[in-house]
Amino acid sequence: MAASKKAHTLHELLLNKLMALYDIEIQITKALPRLAKKVSNDELRQAFEDHVKETNAQVKRLESCFKALKVKPKKLKSEAIRGLANDAQWVAKNVQKGSALDANLIAAAQYVEHYEIAGYGTAIEWAKMMDHDKVMDLLQQTLAEEEAADKKLTNLAEKHVNNQVEMGM
Amino acid sequence: MAASKKAHTLHELLLNKLMALYDIEIQITKALPRLAKKVSNDELRQAFEDHVKETNAQVKRLESCFKALKVKPKKLKSEAIRGLANDAQWVAKNVQKGSALDANLIAAAQYVEHYEIAGYGTAIEWAKMMDHDKVMDLLQQTLAEEEAADKKLTNLAEKHVNNQVEMGM
Repeated sequence: MAASKKAHTLHELLLNKLMALYDIEIQITKALPRLAKKVSNDELRQAFEDHVKETNAQVKRLESCFKALKVKPKKLKSEAIRGLANDAQWVAKNVQKGSALDANLIAAAQYVEHYEIAGYGTAIEWAKMMDHDKVMDLLQQTLAEEEAADKKLTNLAEKHVNNQVEMGM
Repeated sequence: MAASKKAHTLHELLLNKLMALYDIEIQITKALPRLAKKVSNDELRQAFEDHVKETNAQVKRLESCFKALKVKPKKLKSEAIRGLANDAQWVAKNVQKGSALDANLIAAAQYVEHYEIAGYGTAIEWAKMMDHDKVMDLLQQTLAEEEAADKKLTNLAEKHVNNQVEMGM
């Protein structure tokens, strides 16, 4: 890419970030249902399935952001989300189904939540600087959902999952 | 891997998590100095360089965890950290050097901080359940450093970097 084509404005950085988040959320709508099938604990499986629905809504919300900024929705490939999904697949293959796998899938899901929390945090900060109130409002709704999902997973881990795993020391 | 070889105890999950964190920190000691060279703001470059030193100490701290658990330090390959590093390299190539790149490198570094915060959070929870006090203490020192690094980056972004980027709306 020629030097003159390099992104250099906050507007361009925000668009790149939204396009990456768009790619990330779409990847999650594909990976999460596969992982949900590996979960043994009913409450945890329900949490995974609920989050698939939430993620679909988050994809739509990003499309509303693009609309508010008068650009077409486009994806910017995130290698990180593919790595996160591959690492979660490794876990699904190499950890025994039951509470051990449940505990580890919670950890894998929390990696993804934190990744998204960082991404939305940056996008909100940049949108705020440019007074894109509508975009900011949409992104904040998603950030609140990701933070709630992370807390729910911690709760499930502490109350229902981790204490079921054989210690094996 | 045969079913009987699958990890199924919390002890095994903790060892896997520590081995993955060991791989992650070592990858960061390689990727971060390369990114630091692309930074224009002196204070931000210093923050990146300081964090390289901190990361080296975190590697040693993980080695102390392995020692406390009486196992040899070993790495478990994380595809996520490689994806995060590749995405940061994409940014370094496709964003114009100066405050725009600085703002985006902060965002890339915060992705990594949040990834680590999630990983150490899980490891601490599991170590706590098995009363591995020494391991817990070591991991908590690192977690505190990662959280402080994340806050420092937010501060630098808000006070010295983002407001230097041309808006370009």
